[in-house]
Amino acid sequence: MAPRVEAAEAEVESQAPSPLERLQAALAGDMERVNGLIRARMASKHAPRIPEVTAHLVEAGGKRLRPLLTLAAARLCGYEGEHHLRLAATVEFIHTATLLHDDVVDESARRRGRPTANLLWDNKSSVLVGDYLFARAFQLMVETGTLRVLDILANASAVIAEGEVLQLTAASNLGTDEATYRQVVRGKTAALFAAAAEVGGVIAGAGAAEVAALATYGDALGIAFQIADDLLDYGGVSANLGKNIGDDFRERKMTLPVIRALAEASPVERQFWARVIGRGEQREGDLEQALALMGRHGSLASTLETARAEAARAREALGALPPGEMRDLLDELADFVVARVA
Amino acid sequence: MAPRVEAAEAEVESQAPSPLERLQAALAGDMERVNGLIRARMASKHAPRIPEVTAHLVEAGGKRLRPLLTLAAARLCGYEGEHHLRLAATVEFIHTATLLHDDVVDESARRRGRPTANLLWDNKSSVLVGDYLFARAFQLMVETGTLRVLDILANASAVIAEGEVLQLTAASNLGTDEATYRQVVRGKTAALFAAAAEVGGVIAGAGAAEVAALATYGDALGIAFQIADDLLDYGGVSANLGKNIGDDFRERKMTLPVIRALAEASPVERQFWARVIGRGEQREGDLEQALALMGRHGSLASTLETARAEAARAREALGALPPGEMRDLLDELADFVVARVA
Repeated sequence: MAPRVEAAEAEVESQAPSPLERLQAALAGDMERVNGLIRARMASKHAPRIPEVTAHLVEAGGKRLRPLLTLAAARLCGYEGEHHLRLAATVEFIHTATLLHDDVVDESARRRGRPTANLLWDNKSSVLVGDYLFARAFQLMVETGTLRVLDILANASAVIAEGEVLQLTAASNLGTDEATYRQVVRGKTAALFAAAAEVGGVIAGAGAAEVAALATYGDALGIAFQIADDLLDYGGVSANLGKNIGDDFRERKMTLPVIRALAEASPVERQFWARVIGRGEQREGDLEQALALMGRHGSLASTLETARAEAARAREALGALPPGEMRDLLDELADFVVARVA
Repeated sequence: MAPRVEAAEAEVESQAPSPLERLQAALAGDMERVNGLIRARMASKHAPRIPEVTAHLVEAGGKRLRPLLTLAAARLCGYEGEHHLRLAATVEFIHTATLLHDDVVDESARRRGRPTANLLWDNKSSVLVGDYLFARAFQLMVETGTLRVLDILANASAVIAEGEVLQLTAASNLGTDEATYRQVVRGKTAALFAAAAEVGGVIAGAGAAEVAALATYGDALGIAFQIADDLLDYGGVSANLGKNIGDDFRERKMTLPVIRALAEASPVERQFWARVIGRGEQREGDLEQALALMGRHGSLASTLETARAEAARAREALGALPPGEMRDLLDELADFVVARVA
């Protein structure tokens, strides 16, 4: 009977598009133009290797969550110009550039064998093409002629870079606390989410309270999204041992589930964490043991609660913004980014 | 007698500071403040590794040629504000970031054994700390509140990144012509030299002709500087086989001396170049053979002539700028960057 139930569920799903899909549909016209801009601007007259590398990433058909936030924020604030398209392309370029730079690995990391984009090209291309996308993003935002937008994106860039370095030093460090984790999450995800939403409001000429609400929405949504991602890496609350599980564990990342489990650890359990995360001596069965400890202390469930609280904070911020379809979609999106792991 | 002659020459040198040293002395007060700004802005509250990595590069006491150009251009155009300090720090940060990203190597390159900064840290730190410096540069230029400055630096960033990628694909490609070489040199050196000088004029509120002259000066100076550097890598016109010779040859870079020697090559000589540069099969004595071929065809002498022509173009551009001590120093600087290799 199981296959029939699955088929029925799939049908229900296809009848009820997710909040993300509805947001994508509502902004499909704008997004089509953003994609055209992205294609035009990643071309290089002098260095044909550039579109070779970027096409792989940009055309891969990601969720385009960040540019969607910019488009949605501008629309929500009644914008009728064209600059929001440039800003949406800007945030997607910045995102793609950080992915490329994140792909740069060292020999030791490469030996661990996770395939990344830079096995198709090389470290050097990943760095330089990422730099090219940053420069293109920079040109696009200058074209909007709005210093305030540049200020927001410059500050976001600094938080992103700082967070990436912080993540590097925090990994495998058992002393990493929740405040540091939050700072890493801000850099890794929330800073660009917040800036993406905020610049949409700024370009629309929204008032101070609305712009601040958009920034808060993006920040909280980004944190909720990243915590949910980190939870998913341990199989979600039900600790489903699917195929994409345990990457963070193997890379000894101090994500919230680990931090919470460690905070409640007995002396013996602490020795386990010190071995697998602190010293990186991992053996067969260690991931299962980690999951068992997380289950025992409720770390996965409490991580989900924290993600839900951030989603609630995102929804609350929307109260300061004009009601309507766009706001409703953003409201549902906040719960949706967390619901995928529950 | 030789040691005494050397001592006498050293004394003469100490009595006659170089044009660069005189420019540094003339701008010492401003540069002190730029250094303070650099130190303050490279600090990171959240990621203490950042100043660890950057201190090595920024404190190393380089020539500070790029920020000097900004300071000199602003002074030359009668600027009396403070934003030129921010712009000087900006261009030094951009320069340092590109050095860090240039240090990223692949396993194959690493095996060739040239020590780079990233043996002290790692690829990942070089990339992320470079990104942090780019972001800091971005923040500094936004603080000047001048869109025109942002436009110039955004365009320079794109040329720099494009040139770096182009250099990657041009290396070991015997088909690389002088136009491509020039584009690489623009990206590698001249684009930032030109932008550094141009933004100094813009922030000073200089007229269009003066700003254009500063950009041309920086562009030509940068090209002259880079061609001279590439010539120096083959020992200068006298092909002095000093200790820092032949890096470009080993890395199979298509620099001007090689392009010129290849253009005049006999069929047998062409086979030599195809082996050592095209296929990278290098043996003992190949560098000496390359130098002999360059000597035979006058490639080093003609490369020097091209560098001198660029220096002359730089000096000519100065005609549009206010006469005085600062302009004289820039005039002498143009010849000086080439004279070091003659």
